[in-house]
Amino acid sequence: MKKVAVIMGSDSDFAVMSKAIGVLKEYGIPYEAHIYSAHRTPEQVAVFAGDAKENGFGVIIAGAGMAAALAGVLAAHTTLPVIGVPLKSAALEGTDALLATVMMPSGIPVATVAIDGAKNAAYLAAEIIALGDDELAQKLVLDRQKQKETVLRKDASLREKLEESK
Amino acid sequence: MKKVAVIMGSDSDFAVMSKAIGVLKEYGIPYEAHIYSAHRTPEQVAVFAGDAKENGFGVIIAGAGMAAALAGVLAAHTTLPVIGVPLKSAALEGTDALLATVMMPSGIPVATVAIDGAKNAAYLAAEIIALGDDELAQKLVLDRQKQKETVLRKDASLREKLEESK
Amino acid sequence: MKKVAVIMGSDSDFAVMSKAIGVLKEYGIPYEAHIYSAHRTPEQVAVFAGDAKENGFGVIIAGAGMAAALAGVLAAHTTLPVIGVPLKSAALEGTDALLATVMMPSGIPVATVAIDGAKNAAYLAAEIIALGDDELAQKLVLDRQKQKETVLRKDASLREKLEESK
Amino acid sequence: MKKVAVIMGSDSDFAVMSKAIGVLKEYGIPYEAHIYSAHRTPEQVAVFAGDAKENGFGVIIAGAGMAAALAGVLAAHTTLPVIGVPLKSAALEGTDALLATVMMPSGIPVATVAIDGAKNAAYLAAEIIALGDDELAQKLVLDRQKQKETVLRKDASLREKLEESK
Amino acid sequence: MKKVAVIMGSDSDFAVMSKAIGVLKEYGIPYEAHIYSAHRTPEQVAVFAGDAKENGFGVIIAGAGMAAALAGVLAAHTTLPVIGVPLKSAALEGTDALLATVMMPSGIPVATVAIDGAKNAAYLAAEIIALGDDELAQKLVLDRQKQKETVLRKDASLREKLEESK
Amino acid sequence: MKKVAVIMGSDSDFAVMSKAIGVLKEYGIPYEAHIYSAHRTPEQVAVFAGDAKENGFGVIIAGAGMAAALAGVLAAHTTLPVIGVPLKSAALEGTDALLATVMMPSGIPVATVAIDGAKNAAYLAAEIIALGDDELAQKLVLDRQKQKETVLRKDASLREKLEESK
Amino acid sequence: MKKVAVIMGSDSDFAVMSKAIGVLKEYGIPYEAHIYSAHRTPEQVAVFAGDAKENGFGVIIAGAGMAAALAGVLAAHTTLPVIGVPLKSAALEGTDALLATVMMPSGIPVATVAIDGAKNAAYLAAEIIALGDDELAQKLVLDRQKQKETVLRKDASLREKLEESK
Amino acid sequence: MKKVAVIMGSDSDFAVMSKAIGVLKEYGIPYEAHIYSAHRTPEQVAVFAGDAKENGFGVIIAGAGMAAALAGVLAAHTTLPVIGVPLKSAALEGTDALLATVMMPSGIPVATVAIDGAKNAAYLAAEIIALGDDELAQKLVLDRQKQKETVLRKDASLREKLEESK
Repeated sequence: MKKVAVIMGSDSDFAVMSKAIGVLKEYGIPYEAHIYSAHRTPEQVAVFAGDAKENGFGVIIAGAGMAAALAGVLAAHTTLPVIGVPLKSAALEGTDALLATVMMPSGIPVATVAIDGAKNAAYLAAEIIALGDDELAQKLVLDRQKQKETVLRKDASLREKLEESK
Repeated sequence: MKKVAVIMGSDSDFAVMSKAIGVLKEYGIPYEAHIYSAHRTPEQVAVFAGDAKENGFGVIIAGAGMAAALAGVLAAHTTLPVIGVPLKSAALEGTDALLATVMMPSGIPVATVAIDGAKNAAYLAAEIIALGDDELAQKLVLDRQKQKETVLRKDASLREKLEESK
Repeated sequence: MKKVAVIMGSDSDFAVMSKAIGVLKEYGIPYEAHIYSAHRTPEQVAVFAGDAKENGFGVIIAGAGMAAALAGVLAAHTTLPVIGVPLKSAALEGTDALLATVMMPSGIPVATVAIDGAKNAAYLAAEIIALGDDELAQKLVLDRQKQKETVLRKDASLREKLEESK
Repeated sequence: MKKVAVIMGSDSDFAVMSKAIGVLKEYGIPYEAHIYSAHRTPEQVAVFAGDAKENGFGVIIAGAGMAAALAGVLAAHTTLPVIGVPLKSAALEGTDALLATVMMPSGIPVATVAIDGAKNAAYLAAEIIALGDDELAQKLVLDRQKQKETVLRKDASLREKLEESK
Repeated sequence: MKKVAVIMGSDSDFAVMSKAIGVLKEYGIPYEAHIYSAHRTPEQVAVFAGDAKENGFGVIIAGAGMAAALAGVLAAHTTLPVIGVPLKSAALEGTDALLATVMMPSGIPVATVAIDGAKNAAYLAAEIIALGDDELAQKLVLDRQKQKETVLRKDASLREKLEESK
Repeated sequence: MKKVAVIMGSDSDFAVMSKAIGVLKEYGIPYEAHIYSAHRTPEQVAVFAGDAKENGFGVIIAGAGMAAALAGVLAAHTTLPVIGVPLKSAALEGTDALLATVMMPSGIPVATVAIDGAKNAAYLAAEIIALGDDELAQKLVLDRQKQKETVLRKDASLREKLEESK
Repeated sequence: MKKVAVIMGSDSDFAVMSKAIGVLKEYGIPYEAHIYSAHRTPEQVAVFAGDAKENGFGVIIAGAGMAAALAGVLAAHTTLPVIGVPLKSAALEGTDALLATVMMPSGIPVATVAIDGAKNAAYLAAEIIALGDDELAQKLVLDRQKQKETVLRKDASLREKLEESK
Repeated sequence: MKKVAVIMGSDSDFAVMSKAIGVLKEYGIPYEAHIYSAHRTPEQVAVFAGDAKENGFGVIIAGAGMAAALAGVLAAHTTLPVIGVPLKSAALEGTDALLATVMMPSGIPVATVAIDGAKNAAYLAAEIIALGDDELAQKLVLDRQKQKETVLRKDASLREKLEESK
């Protein structure tokens, strides 16, 4: 199975980005995580992305905050799908990272998920890899089913609680 | 090769979304386009997404404006990767569609591209499909090379023009 | 009397949405509450809205955060009035939910109230149902009168306090 | 049948607000339109809202731009449902009117529709009145059906066009 | 001397609006404070503003949050200068109140100060009243002088502190 | 009667700011207009504001776009009331000028009106000057009355038009 | 004298960025212009910035729109001062480019000017280079003087025009 | 070596602005810090900026919040490069200060860094001064190298940690 890379711009992003790793582990998807910064270690970013395909990666997830160039710069060096996770920082509620990640020019796409949406980045990576892996595809379908059941169980428990309080 | 679906919420979205179709054609990726609205034809959206995998689709591209629920609702009915294109409408400069497309809850990802970024939606779809198709992957690499050459040619021509004007 | 449905996208929305339930109880309006998600349980949402009229509902209140598709998708499946409550989440101060709820396309309206405005959603539902129920209409008028008196009592007490401090 | 009032803050709002009137006419809902401004003719606004119920109105639609106080002030003087249409003006893309209309304090709800969403204001009014009028309710269901058919016809025609261009 | 009115939409606004009262007291400007809401007690707002001039007021300060209609509605009922203080509420960082206060239509001005800028509302009121009161005008000039001296003292103390730490 | 100053940051602001002059002329309020820029002619701004009171001015109106420092800097050099008109420029819909004008620190107020709200700046100036001029105060009251009549005439003509079209 | 580089992300940016070139020419500052894109030609960007100092550059100006990574990526490869010009594109009024340019992480600064502020980028470059070039410094002072005189001439001409129209 | 001035609008800005001082100390760049306010001590601001060049300054850093006029007004009085640090205040997440600092009119540039980006202001100042100081330039290059190494060390430690947890 192709590996998923989880790149984050700073070690302070780990609290959020580790959720992507958690999901990948759950699905048994091989991954590799790195702290590489588009602004502080641009060479590593370029080399990593440039070699990613040859190194067995299928998808790259990139999480960064503020003027979040990381996903875009990775995308500039590879034709693998790159998923961007805009991270909320000290100011602007994550708007800066969202726009810096999603508003890519024609030709160099970044698949952007919600602000701090690291989990969904991993689900999306799983969906992409599952196109070539029926077992993973099946797991994803089951997981959705479980999500539904969880919601419906909570729904039942809410109605019970409200019934009692009447 | 797996097909790409290009769904748009209204016929008025065709001017932008046809650019996605153009890119898919260029790459020889089979596609199917539909006008389906999450709000006006919710059953068609649900059925289309629910059957998409069986019907040979690998990726779904969805373009919608305003309270753009289309991509998210498609994603709710499939575990195929769904790419959302937020479209700029009469007010708010596309901010409404961007947030309504990208801020998905955990478990149901939408791969969001730039406002009116229909072209990049198609490139992203191509990158995803190329994971299982070496020929397409090769085309993508060549295309990037051509993009670079185009920029460098424009750079050379700019410098020439400026030289002359000195 | 027709029932009011209070649908919320997640159990974490209960803290806010329970305020709508509180108001409905106060007015003696029959209600039913559910946790249904446009993205995680789309079938339940479609079925609930599709059958709502026949099941004796007159108004549907829907509270959701982020890419809040819930109210719009409910509205897509019914011609009952749907009231949307945009909920504030971890980022963006509720702007995402507000725009995703209010910017509906022509033909499928959602009556949107303020961010976290669950109380007003219930008052609005009461106003709608009161069009066919004189007793409820009378209660609403009295309640407004009480609101006024509360403000005026606070006004009197403020002036007293300031007088003393002079 | 109860009447619907269509109040607009200025004669320059007529271009947008006349779309609400058009929908009401289509449904045969009796209506009355006024140009009343919360800031320029506050007495008329107060008197109109205060007497609206007695004068046979069931719903009030209010369209205003900028610091759009109209819907809120009407709502302050009546317990009839008030629908607010935020109008886009020369600056700020309608954000000012949207926030000034939707962010109402607890106790005085305004049912807000999209920026310039006059048509949906009328559809919402029709949905509200239809709760007590089965014939109107039936018309609304049929109209939704027609909306669907229109979309599906456009979908068929799009696919035809694309087929030909292949 | 003409009185200044300090009107606030809710008793929860007192924490901020009391700063305006503090400044008025400092300058010995007679004032009267009220809790009146444009949405909950519209008659009181109309009557207060309509009689304000006759009742000896020269300036009205109005503080309100969310869809802050208070200052605008007061201004609609008087030709006295009305100063609006947009208050920050639970969501949107005060943007809602700012736009709802400042974006008034032609003919009915509101003199808007910063979000939560109650102090400046009182200074502005003092500047307005000082046009007809030389003693107050003199106090304002002296106060500015003191403000400068305070800043310069802090500047000196900062430099001292930095000098020591070298 | 005290004079009103109308200062604009650039000659390109004249199209909007001339509307303030128009209103002042209508009311027979003496005025003086200047093109002074806080950034290009800071000395003139400082000197003008510093001498304004002695030179017979009662109110200063300042219109500027972008990082609109003009009103604030004028206010820094005088205790006369300063009215700020944020002007819409090529980008950002006037948000930049609005925030740069209204968000003043404690102690130095600017009475801010709507984006491009030059007319209201003049009405506000008139209201301020009218505190010491009964004739002007009377004119303002009459003008409001005329505004109302204009709206009511438009209301009558709208209803007539709609009646005919029925 | 050290050279100034003017890098733009696309040939469509030339209309705006040529204004920077115009200013540099006026001041006789040697310059070199390039079309290099952080996303389409990342290697050229890296190489150019990496060699810039050795190649005789003192300042780099970078103009880009949307997810404007150009200035930040140039800054990542050099310790020369980099000036970023956020460019307004088809959507979002330039907010995207502004945030993507200015919100740089600690350690890698970008000196950001206004949206489409290419002229000021050149003035800023001139101010930086003038620190080591007295003649250029003198020119800058004279130019400011001329700016002032232009404003004052326009002021005089405005007052004349208004005088005549009285 | 030329000195760097660090001006802040209020003593409450010291917590953020002291980070700029920290960086300057680290590099051994002589500096002088002041609390001067564009609105409370405009004369000091004008005099300081006007004399800055003669007094041996090469760069001026200015940090201010809200309607942050400080950097712009300093720039108006000098042709030295002025670096603006927009500071986050109680409301609006720093958007007000950002726009008030960066959106300068043509001719008077301000080099704006990120919201609360005091550290980068100092790095930028160092880069500017280093153009005429090879030793400082060398230090900057080494510092970048260290930044890289820090990131790579963190990267190694992250991978180790993840390896262990597998």
